[in-house]
Amino acid sequence: MDKLTVVKIGGQVIDDPFKLDTVLHQFVALEGKKLLVHGGGKKASEMSKRLGIEPHLIKGRRVTDEKTLEVVTMVYGGLVNKNIVARLQALKHNALGLSGADGNIIPAHKRIHETIDYGFVGDFEVEDINSALLQNLLDSGITPVFCALTHDQKGNMLNTNADTLASGIAVSLHSHFEVSLIYCFEKAGVLLDVEDQSSLVPELSWQYYLQLKEEGIIVDGMIPKLDNAFNALHSGIRVVIKDALNLNNEIGTTLVA
Amino acid sequence: MDKLTVVKIGGQVIDDPFKLDTVLHQFVALEGKKLLVHGGGKKASEMSKRLGIEPHLIKGRRVTDEKTLEVVTMVYGGLVNKNIVARLQALKHNALGLSGADGNIIPAHKRIHETIDYGFVGDFEVEDINSALLQNLLDSGITPVFCALTHDQKGNMLNTNADTLASGIAVSLHSHFEVSLIYCFEKAGVLLDVEDQSSLVPELSWQYYLQLKEEGIIVDGMIPKLDNAFNALHSGIRVVIKDALNLNNEIGTTLVA
Repeated sequence: MDKLTVVKIGGQVIDDPFKLDTVLHQFVALEGKKLLVHGGGKKASEMSKRLGIEPHLIKGRRVTDEKTLEVVTMVYGGLVNKNIVARLQALKHNALGLSGADGNIIPAHKRIHETIDYGFVGDFEVEDINSALLQNLLDSGITPVFCALTHDQKGNMLNTNADTLASGIAVSLHSHFEVSLIYCFEKAGVLLDVEDQSSLVPELSWQYYLQLKEEGIIVDGMIPKLDNAFNALHSGIRVVIKDALNLNNEIGTTLVA
Repeated sequence: MDKLTVVKIGGQVIDDPFKLDTVLHQFVALEGKKLLVHGGGKKASEMSKRLGIEPHLIKGRRVTDEKTLEVVTMVYGGLVNKNIVARLQALKHNALGLSGADGNIIPAHKRIHETIDYGFVGDFEVEDINSALLQNLLDSGITPVFCALTHDQKGNMLNTNADTLASGIAVSLHSHFEVSLIYCFEKAGVLLDVEDQSSLVPELSWQYYLQLKEEGIIVDGMIPKLDNAFNALHSGIRVVIKDALNLNNEIGTTLVA
């Protein structure tokens, strides 16, 4: 079985051309087949601001209204995605940009919530992912580059969480490849003290995760990220959380059962 | 040999959601394999205006400076392309959005001109087009949807003429498919009197084209469009110029040798 590494990179790296190039160089050097998933949050917020689109919040949660959907479709699907593809091509690495609408790879539906209408936000089921096309591309030596957009099968794009999308794609390709999933961010991994990189947790079990959550050590955005990560682990994927600028070394938090 | 129809749609159709849906319905109903190329000019100009980016002209020619490149990458590669893909998916037609950077399908270079620096404008050679991936996608039942962007192989996207791109792709697939190329616009075809749809030229030969150009009957934007069209014809492609809203009928201008 071929090795496949799914790498998810987020906002901070994407916003800085120098950091982005560093990560892409390291990404290209990874052994075996590769697939990249990118966010792009800050650029979308910046663009919204420049276009005079006010953030739309309901009960403190950000809503993707029609105008915001236009912005994220432009920024994630166009600006960030094509920029990454062009840079990978310059490294002689054959990449191809995708959203979940392309090839109907990730059919999704608008988020259903009892009280909050999140607007054009998409959720999907892993078993609905059409991984045959991805296998075909990967087997042809092409590296898919995903932005975090899906579609509702009714003609609308949907804004989707990039961590969830990365986890879903990794799981969907599990039967065809030996998949590793790397969540990159600006820290060395899961830290006991967020200000101290030496407090890195090298191995995080589900039990230890629950404990650290209860103790208030793992908080905020790390919780949905780790939930996505453990979903992938529980489906049999190797998952590591690490610094985007150290993709090629062994430092990071490896999830364990 | 399978039939393949390459359809190029332009600005006016893309700017109107109702017209766009009409065209996409007719496009889906075309017999055989299909490939769509879209422009998107007006939306890019609108977006530039909203972002306060001044059009940059040298000797009356529009230049794609860095900021304008960002806008066209967002609008063509993101907003317009993904919107068309999502709408085709809603019609149960499996489409996949592409730029010339994706899969390195159209490696290009910055336009070289003695006196004018057009900025990030790309020209390409038809023989450099990597059509194997397109064949693979088409053979898998997928309809490629191209925006008019290429890349310079050094990490930059390039703004490219959509008519030229459509012609180049049609020619590059000629050895694998029986290719027809349809240039759609807002008229019934080539007209002797631009205000009178009944003055349609049903067949246009190269000689007649040269004569109509000399007589000042074919002018402005029609000249580069027809030059691209005749380039395709001279490579053995069937070329028709017709109304985007009448894709499925026989009315239009067919080029003849």
